[in-house]
Amino acid sequence: MDIESLPSSRRRTESLSSHVHKVGVPSPQNLLKDFKETVKETLFPDDPLRPFKDQPRSRKLILGLQAIFPIFEWGRDYSLAKFKGDLIAGLTIASLCIPQDIGYAKLANLAPQYGLYTSFVPPLIYAVLGSSRDIAIGPAAVVSLILGTMLQDEIDPVKNAADYRRLAFTATFFAGITQAALGLFRLGFLIDFLSHAAIVGFLSGTAITIALQQLKGFLGIKDFTRKTDIVSVMRSVWGSVHHGWNWQTIVIGTTFLGFLLLAKHIGKKNKRFFWIPAIAPLISVILSTFFVYIFRADKKGVQIVKHIKKGINQPSVHEIYFTGKYVMKGVKIGAVAGMIALTEALAIARTFASMKDYQIDGNKEMVALGAMNVVGSMTSCYLATGSFSRSAVNYMAGCQTTISNVVMSIVVLLTLELITPLFKYTPSTILSAIIISAVIGMIDIESMLLIWRIDKLDFVTCMGAFLGVVFDSVEIGLLIAVSLSLAKILLQVTRPRVVLLGKLPCKTTIYRNIDQYPDAMRVPGLLIVRVDSAIYFSNCNYVKERIGRWLSDEEEKFKARFLPRIQFLIIDLSPVIDIDTSGIHSLEDLYKSLRKKDVQLVLANPGQAVIDKFHASKLTELIGQDQIFLTVDDAVLKCSTKVAELELN
Amino acid sequence: MDIESLPSSRRRTESLSSHVHKVGVPSPQNLLKDFKETVKETLFPDDPLRPFKDQPRSRKLILGLQAIFPIFEWGRDYSLAKFKGDLIAGLTIASLCIPQDIGYAKLANLAPQYGLYTSFVPPLIYAVLGSSRDIAIGPAAVVSLILGTMLQDEIDPVKNAADYRRLAFTATFFAGITQAALGLFRLGFLIDFLSHAAIVGFLSGTAITIALQQLKGFLGIKDFTRKTDIVSVMRSVWGSVHHGWNWQTIVIGTTFLGFLLLAKHIGKKNKRFFWIPAIAPLISVILSTFFVYIFRADKKGVQIVKHIKKGINQPSVHEIYFTGKYVMKGVKIGAVAGMIALTEALAIARTFASMKDYQIDGNKEMVALGAMNVVGSMTSCYLATGSFSRSAVNYMAGCQTTISNVVMSIVVLLTLELITPLFKYTPSTILSAIIISAVIGMIDIESMLLIWRIDKLDFVTCMGAFLGVVFDSVEIGLLIAVSLSLAKILLQVTRPRVVLLGKLPCKTTIYRNIDQYPDAMRVPGLLIVRVDSAIYFSNCNYVKERIGRWLSDEEEKFKARFLPRIQFLIIDLSPVIDIDTSGIHSLEDLYKSLRKKDVQLVLANPGQAVIDKFHASKLTELIGQDQIFLTVDDAVLKCSTKVAELELN
Repeated sequence: MDIESLPSSRRRTESLSSHVHKVGVPSPQNLLKDFKETVKETLFPDDPLRPFKDQPRSRKLILGLQAIFPIFEWGRDYSLAKFKGDLIAGLTIASLCIPQDIGYAKLANLAPQYGLYTSFVPPLIYAVLGSSRDIAIGPAAVVSLILGTMLQDEIDPVKNAADYRRLAFTATFFAGITQAALGLFRLGFLIDFLSHAAIVGFLSGTAITIALQQLKGFLGIKDFTRKTDIVSVMRSVWGSVHHGWNWQTIVIGTTFLGFLLLAKHIGKKNKRFFWIPAIAPLISVILSTFFVYIFRADKKGVQIVKHIKKGINQPSVHEIYFTGKYVMKGVKIGAVAGMIALTEALAIARTFASMKDYQIDGNKEMVALGAMNVVGSMTSCYLATGSFSRSAVNYMAGCQTTISNVVMSIVVLLTLELITPLFKYTPSTILSAIIISAVIGMIDIESMLLIWRIDKLDFVTCMGAFLGVVFDSVEIGLLIAVSLSLAKILLQVTRPRVVLLGKLPCKTTIYRNIDQYPDAMRVPGLLIVRVDSAIYFSNCNYVKERIGRWLSDEEEKFKARFLPRIQFLIIDLSPVIDIDTSGIHSLEDLYKSLRKKDVQLVLANPGQAVIDKFHASKLTELIGQDQIFLTVDDAVLKCSTKVAELELN
Repeated sequence: MDIESLPSSRRRTESLSSHVHKVGVPSPQNLLKDFKETVKETLFPDDPLRPFKDQPRSRKLILGLQAIFPIFEWGRDYSLAKFKGDLIAGLTIASLCIPQDIGYAKLANLAPQYGLYTSFVPPLIYAVLGSSRDIAIGPAAVVSLILGTMLQDEIDPVKNAADYRRLAFTATFFAGITQAALGLFRLGFLIDFLSHAAIVGFLSGTAITIALQQLKGFLGIKDFTRKTDIVSVMRSVWGSVHHGWNWQTIVIGTTFLGFLLLAKHIGKKNKRFFWIPAIAPLISVILSTFFVYIFRADKKGVQIVKHIKKGINQPSVHEIYFTGKYVMKGVKIGAVAGMIALTEALAIARTFASMKDYQIDGNKEMVALGAMNVVGSMTSCYLATGSFSRSAVNYMAGCQTTISNVVMSIVVLLTLELITPLFKYTPSTILSAIIISAVIGMIDIESMLLIWRIDKLDFVTCMGAFLGVVFDSVEIGLLIAVSLSLAKILLQVTRPRVVLLGKLPCKTTIYRNIDQYPDAMRVPGLLIVRVDSAIYFSNCNYVKERIGRWLSDEEEKFKARFLPRIQFLIIDLSPVIDIDTSGIHSLEDLYKSLRKKDVQLVLANPGQAVIDKFHASKLTELIGQDQIFLTVDDAVLKCSTKVAELELN
């Protein structure tokens, strides 16, 4: 951090100052135009009407139809080869979804057939409206758990099963409405407020919670807590150790859990065997059901599914609460669960879209998911979304379009019509084992470690969400996740970095942070700082005081080394994206207090929004138009000439 | 926006590429050190222990004492000349505060003597602990109104006067605790979350609300609504037009209001007559009291003050609720009112400090204000803060130190002991007139217009707070103010600008936004964009998609003009202050999708935090260390050479 010698900087001054480019002041914008542009970038960043521009009317109609029903777009070049891929993928995910559905319905405290119903209607709707080619639609673990815990806070699922189910349909209906509304009003960016780190922590925590819940079925415990936190669950487990566990259940459970995990391991090791973990659950169900039936293990305390209603979905419009005290509860639960379901579905859609390199329109996707859940709520389905595990299998099995969902749906239909009675002797412990093996992959320690390496604050968010879910509840975990995500943004805007700049030695016009570039040289008589943020009400006092502190610190240092005193304070405004009225007032205050110390304030490279506001507030007149430069280098050249002149006098 | 010719850019390449400076990668920081620095900048940005460094022990003790009791600092060079200034200022603000206090106590639904009490004890405490030399401590209009409306939501001030008063002391106590705690835990930045625009709107709205409340006393209406919104108040006023108004009251009120406003006008026109508006209220009180007493106007329906308890403050520790159902209510009301009081006091302290150019330590000031209110709550005072109108008079009357507050306090003491009985016949309408003339200056149309000119979004915040207060309540106004202030920050981080850069014509190495600098030239074969924000989870999808949209837009344009296709996408990261894990993932996705289109991703000028995270996440290895440049110019030189080579082949 050496101080550059004066004469050289002076020499260059004369030769360069002749062609100084002025700071660009954009012509004042029309207010309405400005407003329209802001709204457009905020709500329509994807410019959805662009393809319609300059097209004949008939073409517009077709494009409009294709926009609403993507099936018209990809349907035209659908081929037998593609269908082959979809058929295989559809059959594979069907075999995976049937046992999962029955288990997930239990997570939502609903009878098993509702899980199957939810894998029948929503995938059909999605196939027509949705634009992701790889997502597998149906019940999902996290959403089932959230819906289940939130619903049981309102109605007891055992004592008031009918009311509980009605509230579940109501919540599903309003979840669909929420999702579609977010898409229609183009507010999809709201779900972006859950950061990646928060999602990783939240999902890992939820996976542990779900696995813990399975201990009930897995150990054959009869009295089990209604709470989901680890402390309550563990107390339930230990409390029942002497009289509540059933050894036959445990043997069946552990055997098949081992089998499932082994299948998973094989599938992971060799991608060619992806179908082994995909069909392992169904094989487990068949084998264990047969085993229980033969040995009548149900008489020895092994809990079984007992009864799944035969036949397809009944209409359930009349069961949705549109009036009464449960409406608002349904709205609230629906909004929360619907947003989580959206987050999950969009994350899946985006992941696979980027792998196959096609575009997903977030807002359109929300409308599709919303519509599918609204229809679902009227046909005895509960909240459906994309399932991570099934979507991955779908992708690996070579699905081409949403037709694989249709295939799955048809298989589920056949299951409902024909073979549900066969599930009677399926032991509950198998369903628990299937759920455990499905959610265990969601505990993403690798991502957590990566987050720790990249960003410590993100890791705090991740852990906050994780511990919130594990030690309290999914709602608290979610609240922590959102709060910490927002707090991080606010912290950055409240305490932005204000750094000192120096000139790089071999590049004679580049000024950089002297912390990052230790060989950057200071210029005598000047202090160059850069504010690394928009200047807003939340940080303007801090920025002003921080600059004041740099000035007094550096003045002391300069004095101690008998160097000329600081006469110019140059602020590099390059990263200052925006400034508000509070920020303008702060700069005015800074200017005035610097004047009292006989230091001139000089500004470099204000952006478009900033220079606009300088003019509007007449700050340019106060500071002086000639004290605002295009680059730090221009400012330094001008100022060091003056410093040199003053030194010579 | 012309495309520069190729050969010239090639020629420069060879000569310059030899001395390319590397991007600075700071040595990996110790985690603990990093954490300590973040905490320090967040909570201790002012480095409070700096003066203590390298000082002998005895000096440290003195500095410590001075830090806690600023009176030891300025007290040492206190002189008779300074006292003269303080004496005159103290007497002037005393004459202004006595009638205001009585009126403000009514705003808080308390008996008039509590207003006077609050101008006696708190100023004495502040004189010892506070560091602002110009603030005038005592009851203030906005805080009195907020306290009054929040308290009356809990307890009826007429039917349960004793309980109401106890809750008022409780709220004051917890307001003091909140204020002191914010200062001690150095969380003072929390009050910065109310933007300047929000404060202007909030205060203007509150001023109108307060003025409307005065219509009761001003028109002599007996049945008056408890609500504060303009609709309810106006309904009360019109509803009582035939039987509730008292013409004598109106005549007295309008006459003296005219007098007060005239006095204000004179004071504003000529700063030398600042004392005229300062003593006009007391003169109005004396004249009108005399008039009512002589003509016994109280018998004709003119409401009078009736009774002010003589004598100084009684201890009230035993009246504070420390247990029972009112504790939590006191905490809640105290926290809200205490934060508002802090905002007001700090705004005053900072304004006058910058006018006289001395420093205010926000956190220390909060402790002083908190301590003063805790002591106040134990001595029959309600919430005190700085009063804008009296502080301005204090300043103009030439106050030098907080001794002017002591002088005022002594005058209030004498008033309480000697002349309170004389206020018996003071008509309420005069107090209303005094309050109206005091708050009318808070309706700051000039600032609103300035905000409109500078920043439209700030204006929305301002109007939201204003209309919220006027049409609903101060709480709703406050909620709107804080929400809109935060929403503005979040919007900016959610939809940052992504702009295209071009090379400025006469400066051959400077790249700027082509919107702001229309003469900036594009470089063939390259697309240069700049992201104007930190890249966070909330915007990373948008940024990625926006860049993709620029790319396809520009590709079309290039194609239409038969120009070489875009082979390099250069992102200028200068304004990208920070990036989080979601942002890193987005850049990875962007890199991959560009690769599929055979476009190379090139990065320029990553900051310290950003390059750190690139390394931690191994993104540098993915993109290639040699694709990250110190400046856009370096990147352009390298890329255009390659473009030229490819064109030649």
